[in-house]
Amino acid sequence: MSLIVQKFGGTSLADAEKIHRAARRAIRAKNAGKRVVMAVSAMGKTTDKLIGLAGEMSSDPPRRELDMLLTTGEQVSIALMAMAIHAAGHDAISLTGGQLGLMTDGVHTRARIQRISRERIDQELAAGRIVIVAGFQGVDPAGEITTLGRGASDTTAAALAAVLEAEVCEINTDVDGIYTTDPRIVPAARKLSVISYDEMLEMAACGAGIMHSRAIEFGKKYNVPIHVRSSFTDAPGTMIMNETPGMEDVAVRGASLKTDLATIVFTRVSSHPGIAATIFAEVGDHNIVVDDIIQNFYDDGKLANLGFSTDHAQLGEAVEVCKRVAKEHGFGTVEVDREVSKVSVVGVGMRTHTGVAARMFRALADAEVNIHSISTSEIVISCIVHRDDGPRALQAVHAAFELDKPEDADD
Amino acid sequence: MSLIVQKFGGTSLADAEKIHRAARRAIRAKNAGKRVVMAVSAMGKTTDKLIGLAGEMSSDPPRRELDMLLTTGEQVSIALMAMAIHAAGHDAISLTGGQLGLMTDGVHTRARIQRISRERIDQELAAGRIVIVAGFQGVDPAGEITTLGRGASDTTAAALAAVLEAEVCEINTDVDGIYTTDPRIVPAARKLSVISYDEMLEMAACGAGIMHSRAIEFGKKYNVPIHVRSSFTDAPGTMIMNETPGMEDVAVRGASLKTDLATIVFTRVSSHPGIAATIFAEVGDHNIVVDDIIQNFYDDGKLANLGFSTDHAQLGEAVEVCKRVAKEHGFGTVEVDREVSKVSVVGVGMRTHTGVAARMFRALADAEVNIHSISTSEIVISCIVHRDDGPRALQAVHAAFELDKPEDADD
Repeated sequence: MSLIVQKFGGTSLADAEKIHRAARRAIRAKNAGKRVVMAVSAMGKTTDKLIGLAGEMSSDPPRRELDMLLTTGEQVSIALMAMAIHAAGHDAISLTGGQLGLMTDGVHTRARIQRISRERIDQELAAGRIVIVAGFQGVDPAGEITTLGRGASDTTAAALAAVLEAEVCEINTDVDGIYTTDPRIVPAARKLSVISYDEMLEMAACGAGIMHSRAIEFGKKYNVPIHVRSSFTDAPGTMIMNETPGMEDVAVRGASLKTDLATIVFTRVSSHPGIAATIFAEVGDHNIVVDDIIQNFYDDGKLANLGFSTDHAQLGEAVEVCKRVAKEHGFGTVEVDREVSKVSVVGVGMRTHTGVAARMFRALADAEVNIHSISTSEIVISCIVHRDDGPRALQAVHAAFELDKPEDADD
Repeated sequence: MSLIVQKFGGTSLADAEKIHRAARRAIRAKNAGKRVVMAVSAMGKTTDKLIGLAGEMSSDPPRRELDMLLTTGEQVSIALMAMAIHAAGHDAISLTGGQLGLMTDGVHTRARIQRISRERIDQELAAGRIVIVAGFQGVDPAGEITTLGRGASDTTAAALAAVLEAEVCEINTDVDGIYTTDPRIVPAARKLSVISYDEMLEMAACGAGIMHSRAIEFGKKYNVPIHVRSSFTDAPGTMIMNETPGMEDVAVRGASLKTDLATIVFTRVSSHPGIAATIFAEVGDHNIVVDDIIQNFYDDGKLANLGFSTDHAQLGEAVEVCKRVAKEHGFGTVEVDREVSKVSVVGVGMRTHTGVAARMFRALADAEVNIHSISTSEIVISCIVHRDDGPRALQAVHAAFELDKPEDADD
């Protein structure tokens, strides 16, 4: 008998009626002959409210106590969901992370899953029950309650799907699938029927914040298809799955825009071996997240501009580190640009289609967008542009790759 | 080093400022050289809100899931309390019922404590921490989360105090102590400095709903003094403790009024052995709670009126059972009076003081209150009166025993 994991996020559980609706979806899957495991988040804005309460207690609450506090949100949801399913005449049981046996390391507020026991779930499924698991939470070997980081109920769901060898991990959410780009910026954005794990990981990294990256990594590692769909309609959403041959027929799957970026560049650095190593060793020592590395040479390769893009959140610390490095090593001056965005195109088809980069640069030129710097990987091309040009750049690229047109190849 | 258990109820934790205030009380006890264990309830009206949510899910939610739901309230409180104590620069740790090792039977929503492990608490206290325990909750041998019944955080506190051999179990609440009677009905009511466990148990049974009876029973069984005091002032409250010789110098410690009662009486029953046994066996089989038994004989002892008082909550079922019994056994007619209350006086001093009953009856007569029936035990005398006479009866009795006057004997 096939098994399905259904994850419901906070907006899908925001009130009693929505919980009953989610319960009905689980019951329909069970009536269709499946074994059903649900992974649920805290209701609506519960987690934010709890964080607000913590803030009234302390400006720096102990992480262990934050986990103790926040895990109550999911515990409320599992109990209510079990009640809703019972009320509809079906058997269900709720399980906390500890009761399930979802073991993590002891790093409070961002623990990593170490092991998931099948025993209790298998036993409850064998008894004909729908099993409702609290997302986001686990326990460490000492029995302490841990959490996996914000948004990590996706990760719980994907990890459960992997361990239970589910046919699919369904992410029921407030959007109806993955789009070619952000429809708020490009109204012509189109819902995708499929996307590969790698493409989705790049889309997530490029700023398409629909799913937790670790959940997609779990799906990829254990080959569990992830179905992102709306909680509120029965229409199919987007399947995130292994790459299939047909996927390469499309050069570019989607485009994304990452805002809230800044660039830090060492200018007029004398080009000799070891400079990049010195800079990024220091940056890495301070746990500063490097988005993309920027490097260009001039004056016959004797001088270089060398730097990186990073989030605004860490910018102050990053600038401080870089200025110190520049002073200590005589690496020219440090220039900071706080007003940049990154536009990217993503697609496994790039591997076989030539001219993708040229087409992107042409589209940006036609839209009169100046490119500050370029970075590429196997399935991504990204351009740093001025922040004000970001939306226009995204629209231009989206149109240039005809992402608003139906997918012929794989639909 | 002496140990104190401090319990804080929901009204004492209703908002951030009240939690900080409770944290300061615990810290003061620690700074005074005590080991401190706190037992906390859910914040304010949290439990009622969660019960409301459950009601939106199901008219008859599974008890296991109710426990899963309701225990989150205390878990939120312990985490916030630990944060508040940390913020004040002291070390603290929160523990759920499961983490503490508070083992219960498996009767969800009204489990009974079977065992409390000292190990974890002793370890945390030895590390210099204030230990914060979630009240009301435990786990059964299968690891299922259980609760001890509404208001049972008192019971958690008293049980912890017993196991840890605390010098005192402090009940911090929204009243400043135990009064001679309900001050809302008798404004002259006076706060008691001490009351014995037995007197307090009778006062609770008579309708003085300040504390959970099981908590008082724990205190009595393990000889732990219970200090009922206000969370919001530093004034001493009332000490519930073992009877001391001086306590008997006062004939009556307090008076109480139990409303919401009804009487069911079999009238004109032929008096012969076994009638009471037959009636109360049937009543007991239906789990109907008998408040007091009423019996009087007349016609030279050949006929009797025989019945009992009970809560309105169970009245419908109780009347049905009694009518069936009367019919089957030919026990005369069943008369139901829905409009009665019970006024009682309580005091261990009754054992040595004569004339208490006479003084009570005289007071009621002077107040023109008609007595329907009388019941007595070693330290209680109760009279059933008409509901409308209840408050006047209580005032009359309170004045007759000079309960508004200061206690000379034991103050």
